[in-house]
Amino acid sequence: MVRTIVVGGVAGGMSAATRLRRLASGAEIVVLERGPEVSYANCGLPYYAGGVIERRDDLLLQTPQSLHTRFGLDVRVRTEVLAIDRETRRLRVRDLVTGREYDEGYDHLVLSPGAAPVVPELPGVERALTLRTVAEADRLAAAVRGGARTAVVVGGGFIGLEVAENLARRGLTVAVVERDAQVLAPLDPEMAAPVHAELAANGVALHLGATVTKVLADVVELHDGRLLDADLVLLAIGVRPETDLASGAGLKLGPRGGIAVDETMRTSDPHIYAVGDAVEKVDRVGGAPSLIPLANSANRQGRLAADAIAGLPVRLGGRIGTAIVQVFGLTVATTGANEKRLRAAGRPYRVIHTHPASHAGYYPGAEPMSLKLLLDPDDATLLGAQAVGGAGVDKRIDVLATALYAGLRADELADLELGYAPAFGSAKDPVNMLGYIAGNQLSDGEQSIQWHEVAAAVEAGAALLDVRTAAEYAAGHLPGAISLPLDELRERMAEVPDRALIVYCQVGQRGHTATALLTGHGYRVHNLDGGYRTWKAGTASVQSARPGAA
Amino acid sequence: MVRTIVVGGVAGGMSAATRLRRLASGAEIVVLERGPEVSYANCGLPYYAGGVIERRDDLLLQTPQSLHTRFGLDVRVRTEVLAIDRETRRLRVRDLVTGREYDEGYDHLVLSPGAAPVVPELPGVERALTLRTVAEADRLAAAVRGGARTAVVVGGGFIGLEVAENLARRGLTVAVVERDAQVLAPLDPEMAAPVHAELAANGVALHLGATVTKVLADVVELHDGRLLDADLVLLAIGVRPETDLASGAGLKLGPRGGIAVDETMRTSDPHIYAVGDAVEKVDRVGGAPSLIPLANSANRQGRLAADAIAGLPVRLGGRIGTAIVQVFGLTVATTGANEKRLRAAGRPYRVIHTHPASHAGYYPGAEPMSLKLLLDPDDATLLGAQAVGGAGVDKRIDVLATALYAGLRADELADLELGYAPAFGSAKDPVNMLGYIAGNQLSDGEQSIQWHEVAAAVEAGAALLDVRTAAEYAAGHLPGAISLPLDELRERMAEVPDRALIVYCQVGQRGHTATALLTGHGYRVHNLDGGYRTWKAGTASVQSARPGAA
Repeated sequence: MVRTIVVGGVAGGMSAATRLRRLASGAEIVVLERGPEVSYANCGLPYYAGGVIERRDDLLLQTPQSLHTRFGLDVRVRTEVLAIDRETRRLRVRDLVTGREYDEGYDHLVLSPGAAPVVPELPGVERALTLRTVAEADRLAAAVRGGARTAVVVGGGFIGLEVAENLARRGLTVAVVERDAQVLAPLDPEMAAPVHAELAANGVALHLGATVTKVLADVVELHDGRLLDADLVLLAIGVRPETDLASGAGLKLGPRGGIAVDETMRTSDPHIYAVGDAVEKVDRVGGAPSLIPLANSANRQGRLAADAIAGLPVRLGGRIGTAIVQVFGLTVATTGANEKRLRAAGRPYRVIHTHPASHAGYYPGAEPMSLKLLLDPDDATLLGAQAVGGAGVDKRIDVLATALYAGLRADELADLELGYAPAFGSAKDPVNMLGYIAGNQLSDGEQSIQWHEVAAAVEAGAALLDVRTAAEYAAGHLPGAISLPLDELRERMAEVPDRALIVYCQVGQRGHTATALLTGHGYRVHNLDGGYRTWKAGTASVQSARPGAA
Repeated sequence: MVRTIVVGGVAGGMSAATRLRRLASGAEIVVLERGPEVSYANCGLPYYAGGVIERRDDLLLQTPQSLHTRFGLDVRVRTEVLAIDRETRRLRVRDLVTGREYDEGYDHLVLSPGAAPVVPELPGVERALTLRTVAEADRLAAAVRGGARTAVVVGGGFIGLEVAENLARRGLTVAVVERDAQVLAPLDPEMAAPVHAELAANGVALHLGATVTKVLADVVELHDGRLLDADLVLLAIGVRPETDLASGAGLKLGPRGGIAVDETMRTSDPHIYAVGDAVEKVDRVGGAPSLIPLANSANRQGRLAADAIAGLPVRLGGRIGTAIVQVFGLTVATTGANEKRLRAAGRPYRVIHTHPASHAGYYPGAEPMSLKLLLDPDDATLLGAQAVGGAGVDKRIDVLATALYAGLRADELADLELGYAPAFGSAKDPVNMLGYIAGNQLSDGEQSIQWHEVAAAVEAGAALLDVRTAAEYAAGHLPGAISLPLDELRERMAEVPDRALIVYCQVGQRGHTATALLTGHGYRVHNLDGGYRTWKAGTASVQSARPGAA
């Protein structure tokens, strides 16, 4: 009988095992898991620690017994694989409860070892918690119940912010320490600025450009000597692929340190597949290898590995990497590449910012969002998108992720027929709007300018024209801008300076109308992309990046 | 100076006018609107009548004055175009306030006359209200404020149900009379069943297969003589394109009675364009001409007509027709073709039903939804989708509409990377699940059977196997089904009858696992698509279609 062993019984590994069972009802399938649980809801751990998910059992989607009963799987928890003998196709296995060691032979092997939280070498770091397993979530929940009043979360990534929010909701005084100048690295800085504001508004102290140098009894010490109260310290500075077993067996690793696999999830050994957070994927935008530790990606790969083992045709394309997180009242989501990554890769791109409402403004309850789109400057294909706001952010990023997957051009977004009723969207949906703006630039040749390019353009002699109302102008404007409201522009055309112009409004739309009018009158005009709002957020992000600004 | 006249100043017409202004700052642009308002939020009218939108002004997105100030448009309301002289390119125009008639010459003409509510010839029908303009919404709102206690809404389409809900929320006793056996014609019957239940649960009496024969003083009479109390009668049985002006000028109409246009929105006269609800679009699935009276489509076409007039390259592809509506606690959305239409067109298709949760089950607040996907049986390209449920229905239909637009195959839906965090989705999103199910059928050859095919298959000798738990079976099951819970199936394989099998669970997923297991044991198995839930909904829809069942 053909025998498949799966190492690692969470997302990717368990998807492989159950899928393989459905494809091969008679095959022998063994799952070896080092920890005490299989198939648990990793992504729910911050919410369990925070009490949003009340029952621990809700995290445990399957048990070894349920998997045996339903799928005929031989699942062994607290069982560690020590080594792979690829010659003889045997594993050296240790039962972590009894200490007994034994060998297991395989025909096919699927590695799904996952990734481990990075723990820096710091004095006192052994007191710090991490959050990857149910046991670690138990420890965090116990610390909260045990009376912790203050917490320092080290790392402002997705997990870090989820934990920070959950602890704050439990009444703790929370500080987040982030080495970078912004939280949530997949966002570009101007898109991260509203997240910084949201954390501040909810009482979470944010220390950007800061590192922890010591973990002491009830405080942590930062690089500049400041001390932060910390009954509880949580490390969330990232994960690294668990590759010891794979590299010990001489399997090829990729340039990013993950296990290298081909399009069928096969490693450098034809009998061994690897899936999940430990594996390097090919990035769809740019084609570079990347690590994308996401549960949905792990599930997908696990299933494909099973298909490959069963002899079905399999081909996993480049990964886009869509991610979403709730940060108090904000939803933050990204798909594809960001500007930082494209710039680093030397790949040309064009940027569009817009600030639409979640649904028609005439219907109550619309919430604002900020959208950013990155597109190829030559053929207008989508490269990436970011969204920050309230209701409907998840919908727009999923639509954009689908469009990106399908290879649509940005101007085609205008043509998408999306469901419109007042409670759900607008006659021109935010995604359509991105397409219309892209079309304006492509077909009409409208020129835009980005928030970070304004200063240099003004330096070079351009005049700044604020076409918002006088009241909007009075509430804050770009330095040196002339106020000339759009609805007066036709009458007051004589007042427009005879120079290169940068026009702006609040979000870019009135600027678009003004740009068209002024261009028709012979002016050379750039419309400030995303308007005052994007400029303001971008400027705030630069402020927070200055040393000592946090 | 080039002169463009736009006839009709709501969605499509005003989009054409403002877009053209941005493309041609010096052009003369005149908008002639028969009614007293331009650019109003048609889709908000039911909510204004129901008090959800409180301020009438919120419906009025622009005024003639604001359009003149901002866009330099010459907008004339209460101005009717009586005739087009295509030879001389002149319009005969009447000022409805003064009665004065005059001529206006044009270089380009854009017709955006919209559609008018269908009013059947019935005794007493002059008392019935319709809802297309702000004035009609005023009348409806006045009737509610004036003390109407009972209402009959004739027509169970999108507008009819929106009005019914709004009136019910205002405390009226509401009945809906629908000629068809179901509400919301774009849904297939089994998908409409939950809508019927939702209406009933919210106290709206639904009379299916019924027609109104008389409108009397305070009741309406149905075809079978029943009388329904009706202080207020609202007609919402559909709209017909306003083509009098176009046909009077000898412009070509299409087979569905709308104005015929090419891919650039041009009519049979090269100087005349037409957009919006009065126009026939090509249906993307199947390529047949169709009428799709949707605001987003009208806006899109208005813009494209302006582009065409300005000499930009324009090509409007076939329309998909995505629509969404809120019905009390349910969201209902559709995109592309439904089963009824495909069957009528003789186009082969395959069906997938699933009943996922809006987000991960372990996170609180997940809401159920029902999803239906139609795909090409040969190449698996998407043909259409329907969704009914709570939160997240809008998101899934928009993703599916995007995938349909892009020409994706159903199995590619499994590969979409959609944002996953516990509050927003699942590691396998509902859209991914549709892709996985399609993949099961394509690659593994799993056979499914539809709810309406079960009876014939049982008649032909198939055995019905219920693989849910004993408790689920006890709470309701298919007639004649044997109970054999999935988790006991491996042990009790000997009890499985040696016949063709139809396996089912609650939604199809356990059925899938059982099907794989039984197929591996040599059985010929069909999995009931969508499980007991779809069968139950389908059966209910057949019940309600029986005469007198309402």
